[in-house]
Amino acid sequence: MVVVMAPDATAEDVAHVVEKVEAVGGKAFVSQGVDRTIIGLVGDIDSFHGLNLRTLRGVAAVHRISDPYKLVSRQHHPARSTVWVGKPGATVPVGPATFTFVAGPCAVESPEQTLEAATMAKAAGASLLRGGAYKPRTSPYAFQGLGRRGLDILASVGAAVGLPIVTEVVDARDVAEVAEQADMLQIGTRNMANFGLLQAVGESGKPVLLKRGMTATIEEWLMAAEYVAQRGNLDIVLCERGIRTFEPATRNTLDISAVPVVQVASHLPVIVDPSHASGRKDLVVPLSRAAIAVGADGIIVDVHPDPEVALCDGPQALHGPDLRALAQAVRQIPPLVGRGPAEAATVTPPG
Amino acid sequence: MVVVMAPDATAEDVAHVVEKVEAVGGKAFVSQGVDRTIIGLVGDIDSFHGLNLRTLRGVAAVHRISDPYKLVSRQHHPARSTVWVGKPGATVPVGPATFTFVAGPCAVESPEQTLEAATMAKAAGASLLRGGAYKPRTSPYAFQGLGRRGLDILASVGAAVGLPIVTEVVDARDVAEVAEQADMLQIGTRNMANFGLLQAVGESGKPVLLKRGMTATIEEWLMAAEYVAQRGNLDIVLCERGIRTFEPATRNTLDISAVPVVQVASHLPVIVDPSHASGRKDLVVPLSRAAIAVGADGIIVDVHPDPEVALCDGPQALHGPDLRALAQAVRQIPPLVGRGPAEAATVTPPG
Amino acid sequence: MVVVMAPDATAEDVAHVVEKVEAVGGKAFVSQGVDRTIIGLVGDIDSFHGLNLRTLRGVAAVHRISDPYKLVSRQHHPARSTVWVGKPGATVPVGPATFTFVAGPCAVESPEQTLEAATMAKAAGASLLRGGAYKPRTSPYAFQGLGRRGLDILASVGAAVGLPIVTEVVDARDVAEVAEQADMLQIGTRNMANFGLLQAVGESGKPVLLKRGMTATIEEWLMAAEYVAQRGNLDIVLCERGIRTFEPATRNTLDISAVPVVQVASHLPVIVDPSHASGRKDLVVPLSRAAIAVGADGIIVDVHPDPEVALCDGPQALHGPDLRALAQAVRQIPPLVGRGPAEAATVTPPG
Amino acid sequence: MVVVMAPDATAEDVAHVVEKVEAVGGKAFVSQGVDRTIIGLVGDIDSFHGLNLRTLRGVAAVHRISDPYKLVSRQHHPARSTVWVGKPGATVPVGPATFTFVAGPCAVESPEQTLEAATMAKAAGASLLRGGAYKPRTSPYAFQGLGRRGLDILASVGAAVGLPIVTEVVDARDVAEVAEQADMLQIGTRNMANFGLLQAVGESGKPVLLKRGMTATIEEWLMAAEYVAQRGNLDIVLCERGIRTFEPATRNTLDISAVPVVQVASHLPVIVDPSHASGRKDLVVPLSRAAIAVGADGIIVDVHPDPEVALCDGPQALHGPDLRALAQAVRQIPPLVGRGPAEAATVTPPG
Repeated sequence: MVVVMAPDATAEDVAHVVEKVEAVGGKAFVSQGVDRTIIGLVGDIDSFHGLNLRTLRGVAAVHRISDPYKLVSRQHHPARSTVWVGKPGATVPVGPATFTFVAGPCAVESPEQTLEAATMAKAAGASLLRGGAYKPRTSPYAFQGLGRRGLDILASVGAAVGLPIVTEVVDARDVAEVAEQADMLQIGTRNMANFGLLQAVGESGKPVLLKRGMTATIEEWLMAAEYVAQRGNLDIVLCERGIRTFEPATRNTLDISAVPVVQVASHLPVIVDPSHASGRKDLVVPLSRAAIAVGADGIIVDVHPDPEVALCDGPQALHGPDLRALAQAVRQIPPLVGRGPAEAATVTPPG
Repeated sequence: MVVVMAPDATAEDVAHVVEKVEAVGGKAFVSQGVDRTIIGLVGDIDSFHGLNLRTLRGVAAVHRISDPYKLVSRQHHPARSTVWVGKPGATVPVGPATFTFVAGPCAVESPEQTLEAATMAKAAGASLLRGGAYKPRTSPYAFQGLGRRGLDILASVGAAVGLPIVTEVVDARDVAEVAEQADMLQIGTRNMANFGLLQAVGESGKPVLLKRGMTATIEEWLMAAEYVAQRGNLDIVLCERGIRTFEPATRNTLDISAVPVVQVASHLPVIVDPSHASGRKDLVVPLSRAAIAVGADGIIVDVHPDPEVALCDGPQALHGPDLRALAQAVRQIPPLVGRGPAEAATVTPPG
Repeated sequence: MVVVMAPDATAEDVAHVVEKVEAVGGKAFVSQGVDRTIIGLVGDIDSFHGLNLRTLRGVAAVHRISDPYKLVSRQHHPARSTVWVGKPGATVPVGPATFTFVAGPCAVESPEQTLEAATMAKAAGASLLRGGAYKPRTSPYAFQGLGRRGLDILASVGAAVGLPIVTEVVDARDVAEVAEQADMLQIGTRNMANFGLLQAVGESGKPVLLKRGMTATIEEWLMAAEYVAQRGNLDIVLCERGIRTFEPATRNTLDISAVPVVQVASHLPVIVDPSHASGRKDLVVPLSRAAIAVGADGIIVDVHPDPEVALCDGPQALHGPDLRALAQAVRQIPPLVGRGPAEAATVTPPG
Repeated sequence: MVVVMAPDATAEDVAHVVEKVEAVGGKAFVSQGVDRTIIGLVGDIDSFHGLNLRTLRGVAAVHRISDPYKLVSRQHHPARSTVWVGKPGATVPVGPATFTFVAGPCAVESPEQTLEAATMAKAAGASLLRGGAYKPRTSPYAFQGLGRRGLDILASVGAAVGLPIVTEVVDARDVAEVAEQADMLQIGTRNMANFGLLQAVGESGKPVLLKRGMTATIEEWLMAAEYVAQRGNLDIVLCERGIRTFEPATRNTLDISAVPVVQVASHLPVIVDPSHASGRKDLVVPLSRAAIAVGADGIIVDVHPDPEVALCDGPQALHGPDLRALAQAVRQIPPLVGRGPAEAATVTPPG
């Protein structure tokens, strides 16, 4: 940490800061400049937080230097992690050596629609099936998902087509029930800072897909992952899904730079959701190509057998020629960035 | 709703839209322009949502015209509402005729600190006591609040100084417990879109203080209020607390315009939190003055007997001369905008 | 400046930084932490910029500590400045002791419309007349202003009603011509970073009204003022006019906090433009009240005798009852924050 | 255009709107809903703008339906354009069939540095040379470029290595001088809304590289292009260079979606600047890969023989292994998205 004193801070003010820091076992290095004095702090950062340094007389600013997250940081864990999703004997990797394609319907509507979407997804090369049973909706008047029944449908379709399933959980009270059937628990963008829910999935024993809050900084997103990790669960896959900006042409602005930024800062895998980022079907394929090329560890997209009758986010769901174009990109581009396909059949989880 | 057809849409595409609209009982008015055709829809908007109009061939865009919220809208409820907070015989109004000053410590730390802060708050003119027992924190390593014990302290201090209490609830599982003691339940900025929690407080029977999500549009904020209202609870006070922008000089950017915008769109009262908006003690008094002058129905501020040792947000807590300046503003400015003080003793709730 | 080394930086990397700093006459204070080393730099900041410290091996980040602006900073000029606008014998102050009301039509359309607007403005208490002759418009198909002819009209109307005039200049080639007649030169939001134009008005010998870029940080805005000041012109009034955010309810988001933030950082006066910030007539009066109460040194608003036929920004122009309400606020609120009226007749510029 | 009436608008208010529209030769289609009436307008949009519809009694909102730009729109010009840059006999295409790599130093510092950078750029596959002679800088204390002398250096280096040159012009007064030597004129992000400058380059007879304003919407960016086009110059290449958001990890947020969005809306070519978007050398290669894969018509990057001593933006300049990785991406990825290299020798401009 670095404490910046105000131009009119007195020698006494500086001494008071040093004293406080030393009282909690830290060391304070004073650099006296022409206009200002700065003080470098060395020691246990958590103990410094308790000092309320910004409230002390003469203090103009306090800058944190180290990353506030620990377990998910790459600093003490330089090798990038692979997360394995699925039942024993048929797990799918998400990590630096492969490219994982996750696809399925935004919402589970019926057994038929789900099976059809899953079949399309698998044929296009998907190795994980996503589908929403519990839906967080901005409007209380919008379709809220089938809940428990949707979960049952998704699980049986996943078993039928042979793909592990990923589904969202929106309430800490539902985690145990969902974890019984799902192979991976998704935390949606609106719940990224729902700390009770993060802790609940951290204790669930299942891999977690953690979407970025639509207005969260990358640092806040990694802090959310830290909440999960702190409960003993490091099987976390991050998912960039667009951030809120002033640009109205797309529903959100896909922050493609977040992928390499996260890969420098954290050992966790990171994938991209081009469907929710753009909200426009015609952008899903080009953005998926960009995601692969930038080095993402996977993508997650909406597919639907008949977008015209979809109960949720129809305008962004792929099918037909677009889905074929995406399947081609998923085959062709990953090898150019040193990645193989992520198929359950061909890999063996470690240990 | 207005459907805008693409320049190359065919007469058949237009007819398909009209047919769909009529199939759910709506009427479609076609305006054929030089470059484009637009179709005005009249009827039940919820039935139109199910049509996925944006996915139909030839459709370029769909614009909603009406407000998506109903119960909280001012359209069918033109008179602005007053929400009454407190125990029978000692309730405090928040509404258009008064100006309500809410103050207290960001976090309840101990009986002594809470009593001292409450005494300061009351002396400065506050008529409601706020205090945090359950704290949502960005870092899992930060102070998480005293929980149940903090709630007990707050309740007994509130009774001792004679002020109704407002406190945050962060988990749907805690709502019943908190509602037993609190006079008003606060939903924090990070939980504005936690729909399960919104529904739980909607069923609690207690008034709700609903903070704006730091990246929520005003419309999304009113939709969150609609979630609460839909469960039968219209005792909702909105709280503008700053939005996330590119400007780093303040923790958030106080969206002062949100106050009159909300007052045009909704009948609910709206107050301002200048402490969390700015994160800077030196801005709390000027921003409070601005909030009163713009016509807010109240403000909520952090006070602490000794900010230097506060466990939460010390740098923004008021005390001493700043608190006296604020007390003066709260006395002097409201009469200029047609408001009286909001004192429990002097008012009688209606009905 | 503070240089933060990467966790894996070597002692040699640190030595290289120290060596570079000392080579340009600076001093480097090394604080060796557990995880990282930080280096505090003392000396001439401009010489440090030439070092490209961020490109050196082992350097993770470089933080600037001092303000990058000098002439406009309050650091070496603690007293807040007053800028005087007008012809000798009839100058109007903008500064900490007064509250200055600037009003007039967004665009000068005709002698009649301008005179009528100016008369309305004066009757409402305005002491400076604003009016646009050269208009920067987003669309090349929109009304671009009357140019030179508009300037002539504005000048003769200003003389007729006895108010100094403020008008925008959009091209460095026009500065001399405009400065001949205008009492104050306005730099619009789109030109805040048009450095050639800033330098030209810096040499014009006239006071400058510098609007904040709609997406400029406060620091960048003060750097733009520094460009003007560097050419010898410190008669600069800053104008907050709203920033671009994700909120669509208002044209821009008025950053009301910018007023006290600027007043802490700079000695220059700062006023508020609620008309352009909101783009909504119904918000101009409440936002003006907020601006006065927060401590702004003035406001600038659009008035028009007949907004329905205005050639520019009609929807935000005041007239009738709204203008009367504003006039009342301008009389009543400033005394509560220690300010008197800014009338040319009652003040004498210093020196 | 669509006019939305307020819920309480009267039949008379509706009639007044219709009358105004018909008075300027338009047609008004009235759709009377349960809560509201909407009116679709057909006719000349520019004549409607003069009506100030938003100021009429009973009007709640006015929505524009058509694009406000015309010459640059793809609506009446469905084929995507190719812009040719260079001297007769050696022009380089920027357009849908090729991928154009533009590289060079951020600032021209000396003949030696520029030649070395140009040689590196060409070896890496660049077919256009960029270099800054006139530099717009946020701080008046930063290096402002060599001006005319820098232009001379760049021109002679371009001739020596056989690459057409692209350079920024920051002042309308310099356009003629710069256009004499430059093969393409760049408008920087800070000048995107400097309408006088846009008109000047529109009359220069040279192709224009128009960077997106860091806080401009895509529509505003296309309107800026319309300013250039309106002066008779349609040789415009758009350049996405990152927008301002709340995320601090990168200097700007690269809006990668802008590429396909622009390609749907406009026939103009669009390239990407990953250096200025990120400000971080370690992100330039992954973001360049993303730009190619998303379908951009080219990229523009900073290269410098010795970033440690660069006078401008050293931290983002490529050299060594990073530049080799980029050269490889530029060879390998474009064929996957149907593009060939953009070499002057192999192509013949049409006509």
